[in-house]
Amino acid sequence: MANRVYNFAAGPAAMPLSVLEKAAAELTNCGGCGMSVMEMSHRSPAFEEIIGGAEAALRRLMKIPDHYKVLFLQGGATLQFSTIPLNLYRNSFSADYALTGSFAKKAAAEAKRVGKVNVVASSEDQKFNYIPEVDRSKLDPNADYMYIVTNNTIYGTKWPELPTPLNGVPLVADASSNILSEPMDVEKFGLIYFGAQKNVGPAGLTVVIVRDDLIGHAKPEVPIYLDYKTQADGGSMYNTPPTFAIYMAGLVFEWMESLGGVEAMAERNYKKANLLYDFIDNSDFYTATVPNRAHRSIMNATFVLGSEELNKRFVAEAAKCGLVNLKGHRSVGGIRASIYNAMEYEGVKALVDFMAAFEKENR
Amino acid sequence: MANRVYNFAAGPAAMPLSVLEKAAAELTNCGGCGMSVMEMSHRSPAFEEIIGGAEAALRRLMKIPDHYKVLFLQGGATLQFSTIPLNLYRNSFSADYALTGSFAKKAAAEAKRVGKVNVVASSEDQKFNYIPEVDRSKLDPNADYMYIVTNNTIYGTKWPELPTPLNGVPLVADASSNILSEPMDVEKFGLIYFGAQKNVGPAGLTVVIVRDDLIGHAKPEVPIYLDYKTQADGGSMYNTPPTFAIYMAGLVFEWMESLGGVEAMAERNYKKANLLYDFIDNSDFYTATVPNRAHRSIMNATFVLGSEELNKRFVAEAAKCGLVNLKGHRSVGGIRASIYNAMEYEGVKALVDFMAAFEKENR
Repeated sequence: MANRVYNFAAGPAAMPLSVLEKAAAELTNCGGCGMSVMEMSHRSPAFEEIIGGAEAALRRLMKIPDHYKVLFLQGGATLQFSTIPLNLYRNSFSADYALTGSFAKKAAAEAKRVGKVNVVASSEDQKFNYIPEVDRSKLDPNADYMYIVTNNTIYGTKWPELPTPLNGVPLVADASSNILSEPMDVEKFGLIYFGAQKNVGPAGLTVVIVRDDLIGHAKPEVPIYLDYKTQADGGSMYNTPPTFAIYMAGLVFEWMESLGGVEAMAERNYKKANLLYDFIDNSDFYTATVPNRAHRSIMNATFVLGSEELNKRFVAEAAKCGLVNLKGHRSVGGIRASIYNAMEYEGVKALVDFMAAFEKENR
Repeated sequence: MANRVYNFAAGPAAMPLSVLEKAAAELTNCGGCGMSVMEMSHRSPAFEEIIGGAEAALRRLMKIPDHYKVLFLQGGATLQFSTIPLNLYRNSFSADYALTGSFAKKAAAEAKRVGKVNVVASSEDQKFNYIPEVDRSKLDPNADYMYIVTNNTIYGTKWPELPTPLNGVPLVADASSNILSEPMDVEKFGLIYFGAQKNVGPAGLTVVIVRDDLIGHAKPEVPIYLDYKTQADGGSMYNTPPTFAIYMAGLVFEWMESLGGVEAMAERNYKKANLLYDFIDNSDFYTATVPNRAHRSIMNATFVLGSEELNKRFVAEAAKCGLVNLKGHRSVGGIRASIYNAMEYEGVKALVDFMAAFEKENR
């Protein structure tokens, strides 16, 4: 497709071109049924096939066991910040939170509206540029769950190894920005959720993968939409789900499977991330903002140049070359290259080539 | 476009073909920016133009005064059932509800989780096939709001005239199934909301139009996503909004304006509804399920044939002729033709022609 840019946005983010082309081709008439997916009743057999197909593909990709439900919801991670404590606070009304960024902090703030939050790790002392050790002496054996963010979009960090919660404490993960980027052992978690708009599909879809025993504990005053039991019993269709976003997610899952699944994605993603990080680490013109390479994200690579003025010029010049949305998050500045599943190796190669040329001209 | 059907689904529902065609044409590259709308950062100038344009168009179409905010949210009407009491219960923690269908009942049930519900009217005695009188002696002068559903999708009813709440009590309306179908005086309401998937756009977008003085009353324990103040202060972008659905809604608003706005829509809608209702009322083969024509919806026309078997045959035969999704809601049976803004006059004409032919063959 001519005139497409390489889009390094952190989310909403680049999607596979073949998926967009397929969606465009059937946007007025899907599968010969005479209407758009957007026009289909969510109760129609055609849409049931779409949502069922999307769920089945996700289950295959992530090897989700049968005793986990997959829920297609709305409201983004932000609504899950509240929904999780409203459903999972059930015994001690306390949970262990690891603070690895502002989204983890926001999640903890929402949990505090419902019960107690016990901070078991934090990297705020260094502006979240590393993944902290979990102080196991701080872990609460009675915690209703332990909460982590697997990948921190703003800061470019990722847990090098998942923390192990105390026996019987379910691990809850916001995996919005690295879901499906590499294999993940679902059975290690009580709940995994992600907003679709980074690694999967369009904004407006939030997927929750939740173990059966964690469903059904919401108190009577919890809004019916937020009760996982409502959504599980209704097969994500207690009310009208975001049908088109689910369809797009299904197409992205299909695309992933066609390339070899999560294992193939991981191989491609490490290859992309290594190309970029190797280049940065071999340069004294660019500096990675996460010093410990083992803590670096393979989805969001953050780095800086020698001055804010150089950062700005870099972003502007890159955009002129069709490498767009490289500006770091407004809260941290610098450069951020988000290189999700849909970003091709060629895109990262083009970025590295540009970086080399820019360095030559601006040293 | 060849092979398109006439889609009488109640929602998600038919959309204007020209809108779908425009979306398809720019699905991989929107406005020459080198990416899909779905891939745009919600913080980008390009998307800010899209959301700003959609809001401005809606404000023009509905003549929304400046002291009302327009919020683009997620979660459907179902989440608003809870969000409204969580925000608007502020003094008496009681509200007046008119029960004109199962969605009004569900809304009342959610309000009961938060405070008191005072039922001021109900048509449940006759399976909601009429709009009840509001018993003014039952109205609570201290109610925090009065709640109605302007159009009842399942039953095919619409308020012939809006009820007038007691002085100072804000009127709150679920207008999901007749928003923008005819002029509505926004200043008569404290809050109007609608799910997009009936008369506006794809599922996954809920629009709330709320008067400024009703914002900012949520109690501290209310989830931050559900606090109208969060959403108003953030310009609907406290977190990532459903960007593509907002874009589609904007295209639909543009399409409405190009046809002459809400007044032109109303003219077209009454013409369509009258064609269908005149035909039904002049036939003894078909019976409207709402006896009082003044109470009938111009968006959802419900009727029955002489037997359940005939109803079934009607739906099946119609589908063969490209007139699809005519089955009534599973809770009431019979036939329902949803003829929202996007349904052309020709579609209703085709339906009436089919009805005449079917009557001849099956009498």
